[in-house]
Amino acid sequence: MRSTTSQPHRDRIADLDRLFHPGSVAVVGALSDPDKWYIRQYYIAPLLELGYKGRIYAVDSRGKDVPGAASCRNLKEVPGPVDLVIGCLSARRTPELVAECRQAGVKFVQIFSAGFAETGEPEGIEAQRQVLAAAGPEGPRIVGPNCMGVYCPASGMSFCADYPREAGPIGLICQSGGITGCTVRAVAERGLRFSKVASFGNAVDVDECDLLEYLARDPQTRVIAAYIEGTRDGTRFAEALRGAASRKPVVILKGGTTDAGVRAAVSHTGALAGSSAVWDGLFREAGVIRTNSVEETADMLVALLRMRPPRGTRTCLVGNGGGPTVLSADECERAGFRIAPMPEEIRQRLLGFVPLAGTMVRNPFDANGLNAIVVQERVAATVDALEVLRYPWETVIKKGDRGWGDLAALLNDWPGLDLAIFHCPVDNNPMPVTEAMIAAQVGPILAALGQCGLPAAMVIHFAMDERSRHLSHSARQVCHEKGIPLFTSVSGAALAIRRLMEFDRAHPGMLDQVRVGAAPCSTVSGRQDVLRDEGF
Amino acid sequence: MRSTTSQPHRDRIADLDRLFHPGSVAVVGALSDPDKWYIRQYYIAPLLELGYKGRIYAVDSRGKDVPGAASCRNLKEVPGPVDLVIGCLSARRTPELVAECRQAGVKFVQIFSAGFAETGEPEGIEAQRQVLAAAGPEGPRIVGPNCMGVYCPASGMSFCADYPREAGPIGLICQSGGITGCTVRAVAERGLRFSKVASFGNAVDVDECDLLEYLARDPQTRVIAAYIEGTRDGTRFAEALRGAASRKPVVILKGGTTDAGVRAAVSHTGALAGSSAVWDGLFREAGVIRTNSVEETADMLVALLRMRPPRGTRTCLVGNGGGPTVLSADECERAGFRIAPMPEEIRQRLLGFVPLAGTMVRNPFDANGLNAIVVQERVAATVDALEVLRYPWETVIKKGDRGWGDLAALLNDWPGLDLAIFHCPVDNNPMPVTEAMIAAQVGPILAALGQCGLPAAMVIHFAMDERSRHLSHSARQVCHEKGIPLFTSVSGAALAIRRLMEFDRAHPGMLDQVRVGAAPCSTVSGRQDVLRDEGF
Repeated sequence: MRSTTSQPHRDRIADLDRLFHPGSVAVVGALSDPDKWYIRQYYIAPLLELGYKGRIYAVDSRGKDVPGAASCRNLKEVPGPVDLVIGCLSARRTPELVAECRQAGVKFVQIFSAGFAETGEPEGIEAQRQVLAAAGPEGPRIVGPNCMGVYCPASGMSFCADYPREAGPIGLICQSGGITGCTVRAVAERGLRFSKVASFGNAVDVDECDLLEYLARDPQTRVIAAYIEGTRDGTRFAEALRGAASRKPVVILKGGTTDAGVRAAVSHTGALAGSSAVWDGLFREAGVIRTNSVEETADMLVALLRMRPPRGTRTCLVGNGGGPTVLSADECERAGFRIAPMPEEIRQRLLGFVPLAGTMVRNPFDANGLNAIVVQERVAATVDALEVLRYPWETVIKKGDRGWGDLAALLNDWPGLDLAIFHCPVDNNPMPVTEAMIAAQVGPILAALGQCGLPAAMVIHFAMDERSRHLSHSARQVCHEKGIPLFTSVSGAALAIRRLMEFDRAHPGMLDQVRVGAAPCSTVSGRQDVLRDEGF
Repeated sequence: MRSTTSQPHRDRIADLDRLFHPGSVAVVGALSDPDKWYIRQYYIAPLLELGYKGRIYAVDSRGKDVPGAASCRNLKEVPGPVDLVIGCLSARRTPELVAECRQAGVKFVQIFSAGFAETGEPEGIEAQRQVLAAAGPEGPRIVGPNCMGVYCPASGMSFCADYPREAGPIGLICQSGGITGCTVRAVAERGLRFSKVASFGNAVDVDECDLLEYLARDPQTRVIAAYIEGTRDGTRFAEALRGAASRKPVVILKGGTTDAGVRAAVSHTGALAGSSAVWDGLFREAGVIRTNSVEETADMLVALLRMRPPRGTRTCLVGNGGGPTVLSADECERAGFRIAPMPEEIRQRLLGFVPLAGTMVRNPFDANGLNAIVVQERVAATVDALEVLRYPWETVIKKGDRGWGDLAALLNDWPGLDLAIFHCPVDNNPMPVTEAMIAAQVGPILAALGQCGLPAAMVIHFAMDERSRHLSHSARQVCHEKGIPLFTSVSGAALAIRRLMEFDRAHPGMLDQVRVGAAPCSTVSGRQDVLRDEGF
């Protein structure tokens, strides 16, 4: 367990900027141990890869040469001040390292090593107590132990060499290094980027409350996401949550919601996980958006950063293929949306350009037979997928085209409609699909979506077979380029948009700040929002 | 809507063998229409690709030459009997085609064309009525209209050129061609194969009842899966379900369970979808396993064909990484499994070879620190992934290895344990992962799983980022090769195994027939089951 004695008072968050933007970093320990080759992979290689501009010291008693870093045998040998020490010694030897850091005026000691209170063993608990004691009230602040540390694209800090170099508006804090990895990769796959990320482990000093308060005030962060297993100080955590959620959307995935999950959380980071109902109440009261998986978190971030919230639940589902459209309609309604019956006037207009055979001319609408798709497929089979996707479809897809452009116009004229969801499955085609065929389906849909004045979402579902999924990758990438709110399942889209609506009702106006410069383009409503922000 | 008058009596299923194994096929119509190039892709190319041995005729009034098929201008020109005609004319012209087929003694007319009763329009309803009238009581049997038709690897019949050539034990019937595509691809991705597949559309004659009865008696089919939107004759369907489910496991995904889904189903195939509660009762009473998505169907087929059902819910979860293991424990318990507290004696044995730091030495067990993984990664970074995966790990992973072998032994000695789930996430690693690194993690786990006397499942979750997912593809493929029950999420595994347990209790002994020759290998219990059947 973590120590239950509070930290001495000091401004716990004012100095955290230095943690994310350290002027120099020293990695201490295990650099000459061939069995611990991964230490260099975690803490040297990523800085070089992401273009960290400060000095990097590799501190190892055997003075191992580490490419890209200045080698020193101990902290005293380091020529100049050190903002951040990354400690990779055993738990037993870590308190001494912290004492040395205190003497050397180090600002932060981030402790990668595990084997502390999370083990539940007396030695580990004692080592953790000693780390805190060694830091003292005026010494270095401790991050971890049992954590991966920080990722900040703007400074080039990272513990993983394949995290994106570009920055974005999402601040992420995680009690687990592993979930940090899953989340960063899943969210980056959606074309979104991060301002600051922290994996904070046992949180013996810098904790979820500090980080929430910091990100709430951080001007680079517009949305906060978190993976939380537990907290030491429920009252302070509730305050931090309320404070953060009153400024920015806060999305939390809570780990440890069942008996076994709670036991595991205790064993993982020593956190007091508590009952799921208590957390539910806490999150609800603070106005936090709670998710149940990394995927739901990724969906929610897409919704927050790329969707305008619909005013109501009356939805038009534009699908492709009968069966997938039937299942998608079920998914939308299960999430609380109403697939609005199509007004007869709208249906008659649709029948003016869509053949009855092979389509479903109602809502949900199976757009399978929509104008020139088939011809487009034939054309596309011979050309480059990216070229097809980036073709200026809006020059041909427009009102009067007897196709997707007329469909968009019709959605805009549909009285009382709140939301349009366009679903393009890629694994249902009864022929071997090519990348260019997918591109020729997706390109016109994106043009139609751009002309849709309603809040509108795109779904290209994650096919379960490797081939279909792989071939649809470029289509998804182009959606991200264009700032389209793209989801990977209809159920995921519906759940996230539903939560977005609820959030918007509870926090009127806040979402406008979140989507600043990132709202979907709309020519119909006369809005001329820029499609993309620098970060995403 | 479909006609509500019953078909004249005849043995509705005796002749269906000929539908899946036709001696000759004639594709009629649209072969010379450049806008309908896909007809050849659906109905000529797959036969050539899958090695269909019968005669193929391309019947088109303009006598278009089609490579691989004998061209004729009309049915009368066809030299010899035709078992199956695939009709691709418009709805209006189809009744005449059926009449010609009747004259020519054709056994089956499978109608691809849409535009019949599913449109809800008088012309379409009339065309459908005329099709039935043209066939008459003694004429050809009708498949569809508005359907893709059949896929039977043994005969080389298929409507998609990329469906697997190898046969397996799964019979699949789908009211939707699109869902057929998704399901065949998703299930094939899991390394499973099909005996017979039918997309039956509006089911004006050959319907879900006929097909269920046929597959129930088909010796090549050990498990039946279905996508159903509705049925014409509830009483007969209930009988067919009961009959099939009393012989083989039947897994059904029901489309159209919400107001909008029901409306969509009516528009899609003209089926009477009915309320979800009615279907629930029907499925429960018949002993059918109901799923809610294509993915759940694929999971269920893996469980049925590759898992022994556990006797109870006491589970050991062997994870990798703290946070993913916490979330996985939550997922298991939510599905009704109990992550059994680790007996102290077992924990002490585990502590004999697992370091406390960086692991969770309890249940769930975070195997992150287990013996030589790190060394294996280092080795693996330099070698071929498939070589690593296919390495005979059982020669090094065994009791006394102070690693995965000892872990397997310990699971076998754990009193009262019912199930082991091994979870290997691939996107949580805080370094850029290589295919070989994944292989070096997965290889030893598979060896341990093979030595586990308990029912045991493997999970390599579907990473949400393209790179991690793609790099883990070979690891999944090798699991399939070895006949390992592999799932793509912990929640999916837990749900499917839970359903398997319930099914096993309701149908004692039936699963032994299903897994004949396919049970997981177990050296501990002295069983010497063969790992793989010809089909999967």
